[in-house]
Amino acid sequence: MDARTQWDAGRSEEWADVTPDAARRLLTAAVQAFAERGYHATTTRDIAGRAGMSPAALYIHYRTKEELLYRISGIGHRLALGIVSRARDGGGDPAGRLSAAVQDFVRWHAEHHTTARVVQYELGALGEEHHAEIVALRRETDAAVRSIVEDGVAAGEFDVPDVRGTTRAVLSLCIDVARWFREDGKHTPGEVGELYADLALRMVGYAHK
Amino acid sequence: MDARTQWDAGRSEEWADVTPDAARRLLTAAVQAFAERGYHATTTRDIAGRAGMSPAALYIHYRTKEELLYRISGIGHRLALGIVSRARDGGGDPAGRLSAAVQDFVRWHAEHHTTARVVQYELGALGEEHHAEIVALRRETDAAVRSIVEDGVAAGEFDVPDVRGTTRAVLSLCIDVARWFREDGKHTPGEVGELYADLALRMVGYAHK
Repeated sequence: MDARTQWDAGRSEEWADVTPDAARRLLTAAVQAFAERGYHATTTRDIAGRAGMSPAALYIHYRTKEELLYRISGIGHRLALGIVSRARDGGGDPAGRLSAAVQDFVRWHAEHHTTARVVQYELGALGEEHHAEIVALRRETDAAVRSIVEDGVAAGEFDVPDVRGTTRAVLSLCIDVARWFREDGKHTPGEVGELYADLALRMVGYAHK
Repeated sequence: MDARTQWDAGRSEEWADVTPDAARRLLTAAVQAFAERGYHATTTRDIAGRAGMSPAALYIHYRTKEELLYRISGIGHRLALGIVSRARDGGGDPAGRLSAAVQDFVRWHAEHHTTARVVQYELGALGEEHHAEIVALRRETDAAVRSIVEDGVAAGEFDVPDVRGTTRAVLSLCIDVARWFREDGKHTPGEVGELYADLALRMVGYAHK
């Protein structure tokens, strides 16, 4: 599988649990519309049209535009949390686990950069309760990576004066990949992931290799 | 001056060269509107209303909404380029210059995070020629930081297997501050700048302190 095929496969996988088919088509149409024009500039009519459906058909599956954003955000954030949790629980030394977390988190933001941009940049458009629920998922994601960093410090492998700030910086570096990554760029998601895993180990003062 | 006052002062400074006063008011109104609702969801009528002016009065100063975005983007990108160029040309060893570049670049993205979000996330809405002009400014900014990293490698102070990718990562880390920074958060722009300068030195493998 080349990088491009992998990316396409990854993209469809992402929404595999959304059923029925019409609900999934609407969700992927919403991701595209939000990414291109922004949440506030998109109407439910635009989304229905992109999915080849009527506005009335959309309301069978989603009561509001905000519900679509909330579903997208929830799926994206749960995937992100799953990625870093698997790395945290994966066994091996802290350096290997941090490296796996960063590689996989970067790959996700590169391969799914359209979804990731919506997930990361449209948080402010969520309703209050939905926003609180998503923020809780973000805190869990932070905490999962932070626990790897703490393990490394405790083991004497990492040297980190500010664990909280450094963990946030590592995640921030990964998240920003969604802003600049292009499929036609020089590097594959995997190559960016490898470089960033090395940079993350440097950020935590891992005494090398 | 406390952190909050500094931030407000910084904010007005930013547009000091825009004259007359009405043109400046329209520009700052556009920044707020674009940041809150996105470029595509904002109308020139919204912008004029926020500035307390009529749509007709707006057209005296700006022919299109895109021209407003182009002006904002140009000012933001020239400020960013100025910041890193001063650090590059500032004298001292590469570590000191990289540290200064990162500190000042982070501070700008934290203090001006509303402007920075518009500047960084609405690039795709620029017209073709304007986009090309802004991309050229971004390349100069990248090149300025890269030249500091290259100087460090040449001096044997930095250990960087991938100069281009690492430079982009350092800038990416700084840029993402605009996404998450809040004035009511735990850290001042200066504190984030100091942490990030230290992280950047680790990323380039600076043999310490």
